[in-house]
Amino acid sequence: METEDAMNKPAPMLNRTRDQRLPQALVAHDLQQVESILSKTLAPYQAQLGPLLQHLQNYRGKRLRPTLLLLIAHACGRQTKAHLTLAAVIEMIHTATLVHDDVLDEADTRRHIRTINAGWGNQTSILLGDLLFTSAFHLSSTIGDARACEAIGAATNRVCAGEMTQSLNRGNLHLSEDEYFAIIEGKTASLLECGCRLGALYAGAEPDQIERLAGYGRDLGIAFQIADDVLDLEGSERTAGKTLGTDLAQRKLTLPLIYLLERVGPVEAKRFRDLLEQERVPTEEIREALRETGALEDARSRALAYAENARTALSDLPPSPHRDMLEAITGWAVRREE
Amino acid sequence: METEDAMNKPAPMLNRTRDQRLPQALVAHDLQQVESILSKTLAPYQAQLGPLLQHLQNYRGKRLRPTLLLLIAHACGRQTKAHLTLAAVIEMIHTATLVHDDVLDEADTRRHIRTINAGWGNQTSILLGDLLFTSAFHLSSTIGDARACEAIGAATNRVCAGEMTQSLNRGNLHLSEDEYFAIIEGKTASLLECGCRLGALYAGAEPDQIERLAGYGRDLGIAFQIADDVLDLEGSERTAGKTLGTDLAQRKLTLPLIYLLERVGPVEAKRFRDLLEQERVPTEEIREALRETGALEDARSRALAYAENARTALSDLPPSPHRDMLEAITGWAVRREE
Repeated sequence: METEDAMNKPAPMLNRTRDQRLPQALVAHDLQQVESILSKTLAPYQAQLGPLLQHLQNYRGKRLRPTLLLLIAHACGRQTKAHLTLAAVIEMIHTATLVHDDVLDEADTRRHIRTINAGWGNQTSILLGDLLFTSAFHLSSTIGDARACEAIGAATNRVCAGEMTQSLNRGNLHLSEDEYFAIIEGKTASLLECGCRLGALYAGAEPDQIERLAGYGRDLGIAFQIADDVLDLEGSERTAGKTLGTDLAQRKLTLPLIYLLERVGPVEAKRFRDLLEQERVPTEEIREALRETGALEDARSRALAYAENARTALSDLPPSPHRDMLEAITGWAVRREE
Repeated sequence: METEDAMNKPAPMLNRTRDQRLPQALVAHDLQQVESILSKTLAPYQAQLGPLLQHLQNYRGKRLRPTLLLLIAHACGRQTKAHLTLAAVIEMIHTATLVHDDVLDEADTRRHIRTINAGWGNQTSILLGDLLFTSAFHLSSTIGDARACEAIGAATNRVCAGEMTQSLNRGNLHLSEDEYFAIIEGKTASLLECGCRLGALYAGAEPDQIERLAGYGRDLGIAFQIADDVLDLEGSERTAGKTLGTDLAQRKLTLPLIYLLERVGPVEAKRFRDLLEQERVPTEEIREALRETGALEDARSRALAYAENARTALSDLPPSPHRDMLEAITGWAVRREE
């Protein structure tokens, strides 16, 4: 089966290639139009911000969010002009959050390229992020249906609230599992959920089907984020394509660490928290404990359970290559470390 | 005449009192409902951000933007529930820009109170500003009409673009008059224009009337900003209610300085630019030149001309206390230094 085959390839989701089995390839023509909408939306600022907008192209990732929205639209039987606009909106909001995240993290590089803040300073980065947010909202209004604005506004509220919760909990080594989930549901899952919801809504799906597919996006987003956090603590840098161990260095509690601290008893937990407070965190000792206590494996299982939930949410869709691809993505979401 | 009387009072626009002739007093009941919408919109974040949102109340100014929107609605004959929501939206966007402005300016105080960034750091300020932007956009969608989202999105794009132009021109002592107007039309006039447009639109005004009243807001905003810039260079701190001379200290070229540099000939202009580059800008020498060359007076006349244009735009409105107040505001906008 084509999708099974694709699932066994290493990290196919993360690369743009000509492979016909890649999710992006199934909606390649749509994605070209999304790119054109993105360019057109920012065209009024080219004269003034040309080099900045050119550099912003380096932030361009795998277009996961628009791809999902478009796959859902096709899987529901109808892809419209509204879908293209909304796919651009979702991607633009995602980019705005990346630009502001880099300011928050004082990051110098993203995808091996200098960040906007490193090149142009925080002032310009803050204003560029604002401009991307407002341009996305304005773009969403151009389809002439306030429901889209409502869904996007609500999701973006949740993204910002999630980011705020994360920011307020920096250095909190007592972060609870509930707090962790509140953060990732906000910062990661809510925009994917929104994209899938809009994909189904504008394809004319029934209300309960729309809710199920929104749930697909949410659960997929949660699975993705947990898998990302597991990968950061144990994976090899080759498959992840980025510097790992940053969560430990930043003393950021993610699910595997929360599990570890829950399991080892109060005395050991105190010792691990002390290790995390050290100027140079003893990464290897903590990684070993994560493996030995099963904390890492349990976090991975949790991601798998969310991915499985996401897959189940697709069961009412009629058979199609797009549905197959949406299923395959749930596998890749949690198997990127293979 | 009531409005003439009010115009002769010092800075009545800037204070909240029980005086029945104040603009806010005419729409006091509406404004209470706007406050309640603002509280309700941010209520979901109270548990987590309580002290921060409490502190944000200190950013609360004279509610000029919602007041204008509501006065226009009444002057057009009909104030609806949509107006209350949109008044809250406009105020929330204004607040978001203030929160981010304070980060950009590295400001420690606003209205004699510590800024959010001074108290909570830049990270929290950036995210709070983002949350206010997205909450405003979400709120605008709740009236169920994409036209409102479109107008607000377009205006906020212009606010951000104006701020960006200003930011990119920091320290540019060759700023042109056109660039100055591009900045103030964006950062100040566009949100006032949008509020007046929405006030008229949702009161059911005719398209040409809506455009005239949008023009009222735009011209009033330009007049306000020029008057503010004049005041910063020449006024007394008592009437302005804030620290003056900051534009000189920040080497920010505003209209009076642009006029001065245009008029004195290239050799003198170079000398003034050198003075502005000095570590301690010789404020008194520059102020004297601004007065002697008539640059200050000409900038003031320019503000008056915009205010007069704004007043003219009201001519088709039927007589009402609200219309009288909108007229009176055009006087106050440029006479705050009296």
